[in-house]
Amino acid sequence: MFYRCRCPAHSQMACSNIRYGAGVTKEIGMDLQNMGARNVCLMTDRTLSQLPPVGVVLDSLTKHGVEYKIYEDVRVEPTDKSFKAAIDFAKQGHFDVYVAVGGGSVIDTCKAANLYASHPEAEFLDFVNAPIGKGKPITASLKPLIAVPTTAGTGSETTGVAIFDFENLKAKTGIANRALKPTLGMVDPLHTLHMPSRVAANSGFDVLCHALESFTALPYNLRSPCPSNPINRPAYQGSNPISDVWARHALKIVAKYLKRAVRDAGDVEARSSMHLASVFAGIGFGNAGVHLCHGMSYPIAGNVKTHRARGYNVEHPIVPHGLSVVLTSPAVFAFTANMCPERHLEAAQILGTDVSNIKKDDAGRVLADTLRSILYDLEVEDGLFAIGYTKEDIPSLVKGTIPQERVTKLSPRAHTEEDLTALFAASMKLY
Amino acid sequence: MFYRCRCPAHSQMACSNIRYGAGVTKEIGMDLQNMGARNVCLMTDRTLSQLPPVGVVLDSLTKHGVEYKIYEDVRVEPTDKSFKAAIDFAKQGHFDVYVAVGGGSVIDTCKAANLYASHPEAEFLDFVNAPIGKGKPITASLKPLIAVPTTAGTGSETTGVAIFDFENLKAKTGIANRALKPTLGMVDPLHTLHMPSRVAANSGFDVLCHALESFTALPYNLRSPCPSNPINRPAYQGSNPISDVWARHALKIVAKYLKRAVRDAGDVEARSSMHLASVFAGIGFGNAGVHLCHGMSYPIAGNVKTHRARGYNVEHPIVPHGLSVVLTSPAVFAFTANMCPERHLEAAQILGTDVSNIKKDDAGRVLADTLRSILYDLEVEDGLFAIGYTKEDIPSLVKGTIPQERVTKLSPRAHTEEDLTALFAASMKLY
Ligand SMILES: NC(=O)c1ccc[n+]([C@@H]2O[C@H](COP(=O)([O-])OP(=O)(O)OC[C@H]3O[C@@H](n4cnc5c(N)ncnc54)[C@H](O)[C@@H]3O)[C@@H](O)[C@H]2O)c1
Ligand SMILES: NC(=O)c1ccc[n+]([C@@H]2O[C@H](COP(=O)([O-])OP(=O)(O)OC[C@H]3O[C@@H](n4cnc5c(N)ncnc54)[C@H](O)[C@@H]3O)[C@@H](O)[C@H]2O)c1
Ligand SMILES: [Fe+2]
Ligand SMILES: [Fe+2]
Repeated sequence: MFYRCRCPAHSQMACSNIRYGAGVTKEIGMDLQNMGARNVCLMTDRTLSQLPPVGVVLDSLTKHGVEYKIYEDVRVEPTDKSFKAAIDFAKQGHFDVYVAVGGGSVIDTCKAANLYASHPEAEFLDFVNAPIGKGKPITASLKPLIAVPTTAGTGSETTGVAIFDFENLKAKTGIANRALKPTLGMVDPLHTLHMPSRVAANSGFDVLCHALESFTALPYNLRSPCPSNPINRPAYQGSNPISDVWARHALKIVAKYLKRAVRDAGDVEARSSMHLASVFAGIGFGNAGVHLCHGMSYPIAGNVKTHRARGYNVEHPIVPHGLSVVLTSPAVFAFTANMCPERHLEAAQILGTDVSNIKKDDAGRVLADTLRSILYDLEVEDGLFAIGYTKEDIPSLVKGTIPQERVTKLSPRAHTEEDLTALFAASMKLY
Repeated sequence: MFYRCRCPAHSQMACSNIRYGAGVTKEIGMDLQNMGARNVCLMTDRTLSQLPPVGVVLDSLTKHGVEYKIYEDVRVEPTDKSFKAAIDFAKQGHFDVYVAVGGGSVIDTCKAANLYASHPEAEFLDFVNAPIGKGKPITASLKPLIAVPTTAGTGSETTGVAIFDFENLKAKTGIANRALKPTLGMVDPLHTLHMPSRVAANSGFDVLCHALESFTALPYNLRSPCPSNPINRPAYQGSNPISDVWARHALKIVAKYLKRAVRDAGDVEARSSMHLASVFAGIGFGNAGVHLCHGMSYPIAGNVKTHRARGYNVEHPIVPHGLSVVLTSPAVFAFTANMCPERHLEAAQILGTDVSNIKKDDAGRVLADTLRSILYDLEVEDGLFAIGYTKEDIPSLVKGTIPQERVTKLSPRAHTEEDLTALFAASMKLY
């Protein structure tokens, strides 16, 4: 049982600077000391600031005499407005190291705060992905950022991505640049034991979709146009032999542990395995990219009207990211399957379906059924309808998907607005 | 077929800064231009300097107007003396970027040249691993180094390790520090098509042993003593859930492609798959470590008397690294198996043996037999005896293994000098 580590000799992974192990965050004060940190910005949200993951970090900072300021106003599912508030805090603080303790909302907010504090002259839209923002290159060097993920979900500790809800547009977008990649991710499985069951479920769906989408993304050698200079390679480069290793491996863990992790917060083996799976899937999709489930999730999250996330300690209406992503997954994979049926079948098989007598033509249906049955077992809301959407909303959902081309162009199957309309329609009810 | 890339949109892997694809080195001139390189040191050896891998790089440098000087005196299986000659060249050249085109011998030499040119005041032993050297920390920042591996073997493009033969000691040792890790590895499978069959075999055995040893290394959470400060974590930290992914995956590719790659230089699929396997195994062992086969290989290589490597275009006696490693592998895994029989059985199974009715107690014998049969099929020399050693040499081989504790302590089974003696004795003849 690899999570029961009897000493602080945790595993520092060669990839993506991830250090893994139960209790690994206890030594963060020493790391900060080693880095010569004198003025640390600790970011978190108001739920976590009351819980052990933040407590452990604070104790370690105190023990090692590291000075810090806390920012606990991170918004769950951040917006441009909440990003800007965190950026202001960072600009005023003149910090030399950032520490983010939380889920994707906290880590992404901290990445943005670090970025704009290092570029004080920049306008907010300068670094936001085109076509919504200007997608300018990042020229200044950022301060070190240590990410301590507390959900088993986004993999944000491994990626150069920060996502926010652009409220005017009613769609999420983000900033994607390798410079945002955290200096170090401290993946301490003990932190996931506090996740409410629905947070475990939704962040687990995020892992599932990262793995499925990166595994089925357009292969890297079919991407076009070719960049004329290697510096113009996109961060998301399509599925490739490396990302496939991560995607398959993450999928296997999800198949084995997701349900257990959701159902029993005390199942340390399941929760810590899912925590590692989120890292693996993060490395995979951070490299290969995601496609339609994620592209379509951004308007699903951004157009939220009144939906309250079950089991979340949050006062505003939200569709949690993992939920917004997974609700379209049956429709999406039914749609993409004919482009690479073997991969869709393999995914269904890893997720527990016997595919030995299935024809290639049925790959999409079979993977979709597999996903629906997982969602049903985990008592997921019955489609977009159940979170407050009706047929009338489809045009705005489609409209909000169009600018997500950076992501959606990695879909293995080309698609029109009519296709997107059909995918949203097919996702209204699942069971 | 992922190697047949129709555009320069190759896969840049999130891990370890590896860019992979057929023809990917054609753009190296542009990368150097992007980096602002004005004075490049191109290192290679005298065989490769006549072959396409170097030709392609030179054409690209010329096309993009990048100034460079060539050093082609790298010794195959480098020594302290040959390292020093390369270091002198580097010191005199005041280079701003290094490019290494070759196998492990070239890449390791280039790492050392870059290191000591960046630390002009240092003595040679300062950075060499203790107890042979002083193992001092590296404080200066090194120049960027682009590694272009032409063997499917060492994985040196992914590691912070540089190995040389310390001639006075008659044993190999090295420098191990994350700072040595190449900035970018350009893994271009086309370059492996020129490898002579024996180079493909021996470098392939290196991949096999990297995977087997890192898979069976002492688990990271059983290592001791615990470092009191995270900065003192060793680079080699024992097997862990991440390195296991790489080791298993590399082993699967070796099982499928090694023999084909050795037997048919024109089998592009096999050769390019082995090239990727060397990267995977490199990331895995660079993180987890290797153990007895590698630890014992250093005196086997260092005590060479007259053995001429078959199929190598080299004038001095050598035992090629991969050969020196693999010859003890049957004995080593028979010895270590009782500590983690499941892993030894799993490895035998991946390598093609039916283990369904094998008892745990037989795991060592079964893996050893599996290895012997692969070696026999690939016409490998029949043990240490066949490369010039006799029983009389065993004491010096054991003596040369003792200072390799940095590596050998990762053996899952503790061992005495008697054990080492027995392992060398058992490796005298294989078939
Ligand atoms: N950067 C990326 O690569 C990336 C990838 C996917 C998603 N995202 C983004 O990440 C955000 C979602 O992040 P998330 O799914 O990790 O959830 P989250 O950060 O939004 O947290 C969800 C809720 O769970 C609580 N919580 C988190 N960890 C807890 C713990 N250990 N114990 C108790 N409560 C805990 C939080 O306080 C919050 O109320 C979205 O904005 C999404 O768009 C980013
Ligand atoms: N740094 C590390 O992590 C690491 C790991 C393992 C081994 N090593 C070291 O690497 C060295 C061995 O390197 P190697 O096994 O890659 O072989 P090598 O670099 O010694 O090359 C072996 C021979 O093959 C020739 N050659 C290489 N590529 C060729 C090609 N494409 N076409 C034709 N000829 C080619 C070379 O000219 C040489 O004659 C040893 O010194 C070993 O100790 C280092
Ligand atoms: Fe996501
Ligand atoms: Fe090796």
